[in-house]
Amino acid sequence: MSQFWSDIVNTLTPYVPGEQPQNRDYVKLNTNENPFGPSPKVIDAIDNFDRNLLKRYPDPQATLLRQSIADYYQMDLNQIFVGNGSDEVLAHSFFAFFKKAKPIVFPDITYSFYPVYANLYNIEAQEFSVEKDFSIDIKSITQDCDGIILPNPNAPTSKYLEPDQIRELLTLHANKVVIVDEAYIDFGGESAVSLVNEFDNLLVIQTFSKSRSLAGLRIGFAIGQAHLIEGLQRVKNSFNSYPIDQLAIVAGQAAMQDVTYFKSCCEHVIKTRDWTHKELEALGFECIKSKANFILAKPLKHDAEKVYLDLRENGVLVRYFKNSKISEFLRISIDTQENMQTLIDTLKRIL
Amino acid sequence: MSQFWSDIVNTLTPYVPGEQPQNRDYVKLNTNENPFGPSPKVIDAIDNFDRNLLKRYPDPQATLLRQSIADYYQMDLNQIFVGNGSDEVLAHSFFAFFKKAKPIVFPDITYSFYPVYANLYNIEAQEFSVEKDFSIDIKSITQDCDGIILPNPNAPTSKYLEPDQIRELLTLHANKVVIVDEAYIDFGGESAVSLVNEFDNLLVIQTFSKSRSLAGLRIGFAIGQAHLIEGLQRVKNSFNSYPIDQLAIVAGQAAMQDVTYFKSCCEHVIKTRDWTHKELEALGFECIKSKANFILAKPLKHDAEKVYLDLRENGVLVRYFKNSKISEFLRISIDTQENMQTLIDTLKRIL
Repeated sequence: MSQFWSDIVNTLTPYVPGEQPQNRDYVKLNTNENPFGPSPKVIDAIDNFDRNLLKRYPDPQATLLRQSIADYYQMDLNQIFVGNGSDEVLAHSFFAFFKKAKPIVFPDITYSFYPVYANLYNIEAQEFSVEKDFSIDIKSITQDCDGIILPNPNAPTSKYLEPDQIRELLTLHANKVVIVDEAYIDFGGESAVSLVNEFDNLLVIQTFSKSRSLAGLRIGFAIGQAHLIEGLQRVKNSFNSYPIDQLAIVAGQAAMQDVTYFKSCCEHVIKTRDWTHKELEALGFECIKSKANFILAKPLKHDAEKVYLDLRENGVLVRYFKNSKISEFLRISIDTQENMQTLIDTLKRIL
Repeated sequence: MSQFWSDIVNTLTPYVPGEQPQNRDYVKLNTNENPFGPSPKVIDAIDNFDRNLLKRYPDPQATLLRQSIADYYQMDLNQIFVGNGSDEVLAHSFFAFFKKAKPIVFPDITYSFYPVYANLYNIEAQEFSVEKDFSIDIKSITQDCDGIILPNPNAPTSKYLEPDQIRELLTLHANKVVIVDEAYIDFGGESAVSLVNEFDNLLVIQTFSKSRSLAGLRIGFAIGQAHLIEGLQRVKNSFNSYPIDQLAIVAGQAAMQDVTYFKSCCEHVIKTRDWTHKELEALGFECIKSKANFILAKPLKHDAEKVYLDLRENGVLVRYFKNSKISEFLRISIDTQENMQTLIDTLKRIL
């Protein structure tokens, strides 16, 4: 605390990301990154970029990157917004669409950055309860609100809503912006992007940090009708003209264009996830059926925090959410088959 | 305008950056970039970075990069904040230190992003007048305010305040945060970083986009006492955990460490600037004596906008601020000696 801070700074409770250990070499199953590195075409794009051009500012519109996303989803360029990771896109979205009289609403178990954004921008936030099995009942969202946000699949539960359920949500709340945060959609779900041209209140947000193997380059994007994208552009251009750097533009473009590599990585992750699910169950875990690149798993006969600490001690890092509604669970990212085998072997040893 | 926007979005007047033409190959003297590409050590750092690691999130603290800045200025690590370009650092600083009851104050001719930030965060902004010769008289800042920001050298005037004048400013306004935006300090000025340990109200902001030849990688930083840096961290960690990507971290570190290359580039720019100043005067321009990597120059016998357009038509891009207090001037970035010769030759032809 400091006399020089704005009042609001004292009230902030910053988000705590999953640990990024810089020293010890862990089997790292704690931040839902992709086990596979970027596509060879991404590496070529970085290698072939004229380093001398780094003295120049990037294209503030990041047009090449936005066009590659538009092409992939067969949308128009003016329906695509990009930002420095989906976290920045989310922050701007809260500001652009949720700074209103009534509260916004999100699930009571969800991405823990949402209440942080609400706090940052002085937006009242209300939660709706997920069901006992962590599923979301669209009809349970009955609050008088000015906006709704939810991840699909939800994080960290991995529970998935079908497009028909998203359609119902958009129809029931036609006069407010509904943000569907699809960070994990490519691991078996179906994107709501197909609903964008039909619903003027839908904003879909995705990231290059999971299925596109580029967490290290910080790219996220939003897809919505042009009037929503324009709102985001106005906020972005009042904050930072050039959030996407030159290398991220060319690398992101290549990642978006290499569909074969992308699909192959996602298929591997899905296969390994389903294998891991069975192995964990055999070891006495209750596992939520996942459509994401992680599994939320509850050790039925052991204390979750102790398992987390023992795994850590043995070089395997998973995510544990202390003092939360899922404090009996571990969130385990899906990595290579080999690393998941190490997880299972380590669990067998320590349980 | 859209029914879905927050009210504030309708009131925003976004910043308009200098044009980044993606097609025609201009002699580009409009955005104050460095004429010299990044240091060979920066290129090595990018080339040697294991591309496979791009699947991982960066260190959210960007410690390697922050440490290299701390080492350069002989400060502590907890006195250094980094962001996605100095524009992001400035935005967070407005939020962290200026969102208060009283207005903030900046010069009436200055970086045109300041009023945009103030507007974004609903901060009342007041201007103080620069003198007729564009210099700043510290004693003219008499407004009852909660914060002060100014670039040094000022942009786009290039006028410079000596450390003793900054000291006077800090002393006169000891109870409010004073931000000195040193985007252009390395081209002949003396940084106020030397005053940081003495003044708890001083925040110095710098960028890698000018003197460090890395506009394309988006790195800016702030130096201040730990309590100010903590305020910035709290805002940043409520907005985006990882604003600096993996390649920017290693490239920025290498740029900071290659002091010889950095100094040599700055010296070249200074020499070419002073040559250009004389040539422009010989062509009938009135030039402000510059301590930056640009010259503010007024064509005494010609219309500035027409000269700007004629230069553009002839492949030379400079910056012209229409409808401003400097609409009789052109802002000309200093590039290589060869490109400045092209500017002078082109001017000789068209005037």
